Amino acid sequence: MSFERANIQAMTGYTSGEQPESPDVIKLNTNENPFPPGPGVEAALASLKCSDLRRYPPPTASALSESIADLHNLSLDNIMVTNGGDELLRLAISTFVEQEESIGVAEPSYSLYPVLAAAQGCAYVTYPLKDNWALPEDYAALLNRDGIKMCFVVNPHAPSGCLTSVAELRALASAFKGVLVIDEAYVDFVDPALEYSTLALIKDHDNVLILRTFSKGYSLAGLRMGYGIGSASLISPMQNKTRDSYNTDFISQTLAQAAIIDQYYAQETWQYVRKQREQLQNGLKDLGITCAPSQSNFLLATVPAEISAKGVHAELKEKGILVRYFNLPRLDNKLRITIGTEAENAVLINRLTDLLK
Amino acid sequence: MSFERANIQAMTGYTSGEQPESPDVIKLNTNENPFPPGPGVEAALASLKCSDLRRYPPPTASALSESIADLHNLSLDNIMVTNGGDELLRLAISTFVEQEESIGVAEPSYSLYPVLAAAQGCAYVTYPLKDNWALPEDYAALLNRDGIKMCFVVNPHAPSGCLTSVAELRALASAFKGVLVIDEAYVDFVDPALEYSTLALIKDHDNVLILRTFSKGYSLAGLRMGYGIGSASLISPMQNKTRDSYNTDFISQTLAQAAIIDQYYAQETWQYVRKQREQLQNGLKDLGITCAPSQSNFLLATVPAEISAKGVHAELKEKGILVRYFNLPRLDNKLRITIGTEAENAVLINRLTDLLK
Repeated sequence: MSFERANIQAMTGYTSGEQPESPDVIKLNTNENPFPPGPGVEAALASLKCSDLRRYPPPTASALSESIADLHNLSLDNIMVTNGGDELLRLAISTFVEQEESIGVAEPSYSLYPVLAAAQGCAYVTYPLKDNWALPEDYAALLNRDGIKMCFVVNPHAPSGCLTSVAELRALASAFKGVLVIDEAYVDFVDPALEYSTLALIKDHDNVLILRTFSKGYSLAGLRMGYGIGSASLISPMQNKTRDSYNTDFISQTLAQAAIIDQYYAQETWQYVRKQREQLQNGLKDLGITCAPSQSNFLLATVPAEISAKGVHAELKEKGILVRYFNLPRLDNKLRITIGTEAENAVLINRLTDLLK
Repeated sequence: MSFERANIQAMTGYTSGEQPESPDVIKLNTNENPFPPGPGVEAALASLKCSDLRRYPPPTASALSESIADLHNLSLDNIMVTNGGDELLRLAISTFVEQEESIGVAEPSYSLYPVLAAAQGCAYVTYPLKDNWALPEDYAALLNRDGIKMCFVVNPHAPSGCLTSVAELRALASAFKGVLVIDEAYVDFVDPALEYSTLALIKDHDNVLILRTFSKGYSLAGLRMGYGIGSASLISPMQNKTRDSYNTDFISQTLAQAAIIDQYYAQETWQYVRKQREQLQNGLKDLGITCAPSQSNFLLATVPAEISAKGVHAELKEKGILVRYFNLPRLDNKLRITIGTEAENAVLINRLTDLLK
């Protein structure tokens, strides 16, 4: 017999991006940073002592939290460290959304959101993004009309890379009656000249929760570390009630703190990715492949009408290059391509040139 | 305003055991192994490469899971690796227990269980353990009468250390209509001569879920690693639907696997703890302090009637020795003392001798 809750029995789980075993594969499918973690993390890893693992870790990652608070000039009670950004997303739902309440998302978006909603057993209401991947007109009014309790906005948007402005998010936060989760997994790759920062929003909007991760900007996807930023009224119940009692481990806390402190290295990698983003986009354009304007570390590339994106995905895979193909409405003529190193991007362009001949 | 779900707003979070900063404190309050991780883990830690952290980890900890399956002679679909045992407990509840259903626990027991039930929003029904900390008479009938969906049995029991026999657990699993979670966080410290093993139960009981952890037996509390063992029908929905998509990190997977493979070292530490358990129990007895018969790495010590356990706890703390005091019915004249090294236990006996003079 099955003991599963009815909503669990009915749901389908999340499918992770492909992780090939072979080191020779050019892996542009899951948006990792093309560089390894920097010298600060390297030194912290080398200095770890096995004997430090015998005891329980600091339950709220206090030292790391302080470094994060310092970095953002925020107070400790506005921060909580989580086991990857995923944990924050789950906690946001399980802490704030009743089963009979609803989550609203403008789609396409991160495919984990509906899975988490299904696991909680709450409704998942979708709204179409505009043709240019911008949020729907009068979005807050739509959400309020439908009594939405929590809304996820991934910004820069995935899978397009497009950036919603702080002004638009501020207006949404002000008008929306529920909790606005701004998933900033890719924020480190935004051009600094745009002066994008939502941090000030949490001061006068107690319904804004911001997600950050070490997986992309800090090259630490293997570690599973992320954090949430929000008003104390949002952070406290997750930090003190619904979080697993020791949700992050000692080594991950230590290395993530080293990464935060070694800002210079991380920022260099972000600058490199921005430069490569432009170069790759130009290279694709020369092949007739257009991209949405991305502020992220990936490009959403539309292949010419006469060509199958699914076919290109398969042919690239055969040549040892992984990109992401979504068999979904509005995305099925597109490929999401992670920005790699200059050399990796050049190989991609060469292969595409051959394929499109 | 508060956005919390009603059950979250009403609940109180879990309080972790005290983790002192000073290395001079003799820490016998949170049941860690007195020894650091062994040479296998040490070598694995030394061989870690920073560049391995750039990419996502194996989502289901496949290599570690295989080592665990080999160790227990079980199939891979009977195993799931979790971010500490805590994650398995939470997943068991969130996957199998509806909000309108109930969890049953014979108390006193692990104080995290009611917190997790409150976070899910389901009822938590308690039954008194017998005077000797054994499970209630006709326990399955009581649970079935109350329509309990999930029952937690920590075995060896915490905080007493007493062991329920496999035969009794088998009878409970057969008669109980819900899911029986056997929390074996402390199982490694059971005397092998007792031939205690519940692993065979999962073959013919699709309602039995066993919890194991690396925190105690393998000296890796700092890592947050545990695993669940059960029928595929119990494991699969947690592994494929409700688990966070990358719930454990690459380093923890690597070090935990090294610990599993280095069985000889771990078993040596368990044997040491058993020997010290007997010695410490005898030492306490000489002071008029009696202990429940423990098969764990701690003793539940009853202080003489004329003495306050709370007072002894405070006085020991002043002398730099931490033990655990529970201000709860049936436990308020007792102290839970983790088995330390021979030297630590000797200091404890000396301090107690002074205090009880």
